[in-house]
Amino acid sequence: MTKTRVGIFGYGNLGRGVELACRQNDDLELVALFTRRDPATVKPLTEGVPVFAAADMEAHQADVDVLVLCGGSANDLPEQTPACASMFNVVDSFDTHANIPAHFADVDAAAKVGGKVAVISAGWDPGMFSIARLYASSVLPEGEDYTFWGRGVSQGHSDAIRRIEGVADARQYTVPVASALEAVRNGEKPQLTTRQKHTRECFVVAEEGADLAAIEKAIVEMPNYFADYDTTVTFISQEELNRDHAGIPHGGSVFRSGVTGQNGEHTHVVEYSLKLDSNPEFTGSVLAACARAAHRLSREGAVGCKTMFDIAPAYLSAKSDEQLRAEML
Amino acid sequence: MTKTRVGIFGYGNLGRGVELACRQNDDLELVALFTRRDPATVKPLTEGVPVFAAADMEAHQADVDVLVLCGGSANDLPEQTPACASMFNVVDSFDTHANIPAHFADVDAAAKVGGKVAVISAGWDPGMFSIARLYASSVLPEGEDYTFWGRGVSQGHSDAIRRIEGVADARQYTVPVASALEAVRNGEKPQLTTRQKHTRECFVVAEEGADLAAIEKAIVEMPNYFADYDTTVTFISQEELNRDHAGIPHGGSVFRSGVTGQNGEHTHVVEYSLKLDSNPEFTGSVLAACARAAHRLSREGAVGCKTMFDIAPAYLSAKSDEQLRAEML
Repeated sequence: MTKTRVGIFGYGNLGRGVELACRQNDDLELVALFTRRDPATVKPLTEGVPVFAAADMEAHQADVDVLVLCGGSANDLPEQTPACASMFNVVDSFDTHANIPAHFADVDAAAKVGGKVAVISAGWDPGMFSIARLYASSVLPEGEDYTFWGRGVSQGHSDAIRRIEGVADARQYTVPVASALEAVRNGEKPQLTTRQKHTRECFVVAEEGADLAAIEKAIVEMPNYFADYDTTVTFISQEELNRDHAGIPHGGSVFRSGVTGQNGEHTHVVEYSLKLDSNPEFTGSVLAACARAAHRLSREGAVGCKTMFDIAPAYLSAKSDEQLRAEML
Repeated sequence: MTKTRVGIFGYGNLGRGVELACRQNDDLELVALFTRRDPATVKPLTEGVPVFAAADMEAHQADVDVLVLCGGSANDLPEQTPACASMFNVVDSFDTHANIPAHFADVDAAAKVGGKVAVISAGWDPGMFSIARLYASSVLPEGEDYTFWGRGVSQGHSDAIRRIEGVADARQYTVPVASALEAVRNGEKPQLTTRQKHTRECFVVAEEGADLAAIEKAIVEMPNYFADYDTTVTFISQEELNRDHAGIPHGGSVFRSGVTGQNGEHTHVVEYSLKLDSNPEFTGSVLAACARAAHRLSREGAVGCKTMFDIAPAYLSAKSDEQLRAEML
């Protein structure tokens, strides 16, 4: 078994998810955490893993086979991934869909300078959902795609609520509309508006004496975030929020509804669904599998930026090709 | 756009499925049908496609980029795929799971003699279902796999019924047990017996004067095929069979229910489901996408036997890598 020595850059929820995934895979060994904080303040869940300052990263090039970047897509990864990709094989979860081509170009150039492999935009969307879309549309070129998200916590929408005056804390769930899901699942190929696909459930802790009606109005009328959706607002106490809404579940479904036949007379529905108790731990698990793949690609001489589209499924597995054919095909 | 010139060997339901799939893809051009029957008796759905005797195949090597083999796994493919793989890039749907390693070895040796690419065991199971199992188990190494088939027509079980004395015709549906599906979908990780996973519905046309009770008993007690299942037998007329059971629908669901966290405290359920109006047309569509991939692999210099595990998802698509990243990731 080839061991992959994994480094993690950024130790928040996602970094911990990658750390926990490494523990579940005998061929992945977490060898270093890198942080922009004072390393002395970072306590890994795993005993014995050294924590280094991000500024000293270059000194550890020889000790790390793949560096997994666990920063955010808005401010961290556009800088960090290209900067690291000339020093290390890297994996990131860059998820700003519109900016993926530009990010790919930046990372590709850096990885080629260093002779490294970089896998970007891994996770579940982009990631597993993208792969589901690609396979299904390749097999069924005449058809419609649908993506539903949830039931799950949207960090961005929760943050938007917290910025409203009088709000102490909030948690927002994105919820797919059950009847829309069913119509798609039945091959009806409905035309769905934004409002017909998802609802938004908001659990809000108000500050003492706050104007609840004003908060509710500010939420449901907020452009882009809530105005186009049927949104419900429920005021609860901080204790209730902590007790009932501490998790970070998410998930969703990707569908392709396509036709074949002499006149499109046969309908086929492909569904890929995820129900995740922990969004960062599942995403971390995808990144860990991609770290294994990046290492294998690098050992084979590959160089440059890749996405999960470019990686044969077998490369994500710890099992040999022979085992996979015998056990899984 | 690179065109792939496709040949089809074997013109039954699956061969017609590949033919129809080629019509839906501008980059796939059906250039030849090969048959063991008298070519004059074979009438393709597509005008202008020449039909050749299988025995003359070698003369058409230069005209075909990829040959798709559409014979059966029991008797045809174990001979045909190795025989053809030294002459052509090939794709088959070999689906006798236990014999895949031996088939792989035979085809690999032949493909290497000819410097060709062979993709075996493509379709949906093995095929799309196998890929779903592989991705999910790579991401969630601690978990359980479940595969449910149906609701769909089992040709093998229908044939077994037709061999019973007094049976004129029959159609058998494999049906997943809804409560078992729901338990798996909810992450309950049930232990399920054969009987708890699927039921079997048989629609039988009896010959005039046949002993219906004896037929029913012969079906429900048939070892391997029916004895381990809750089986229902419904006698209908040939007209009813022809009217209500002419289609060849199939499908099913692959699940992985896995855990992450410090103590496996978070459950994740991955589901991949297919609802297919026409089993052979969907399978043919997968084979067509694999023909595209085989051609690209061959152009890149790849040689030998592959399965869908070894093929990067992007290779199945007619779109460029740039398009895929911009539109699908």
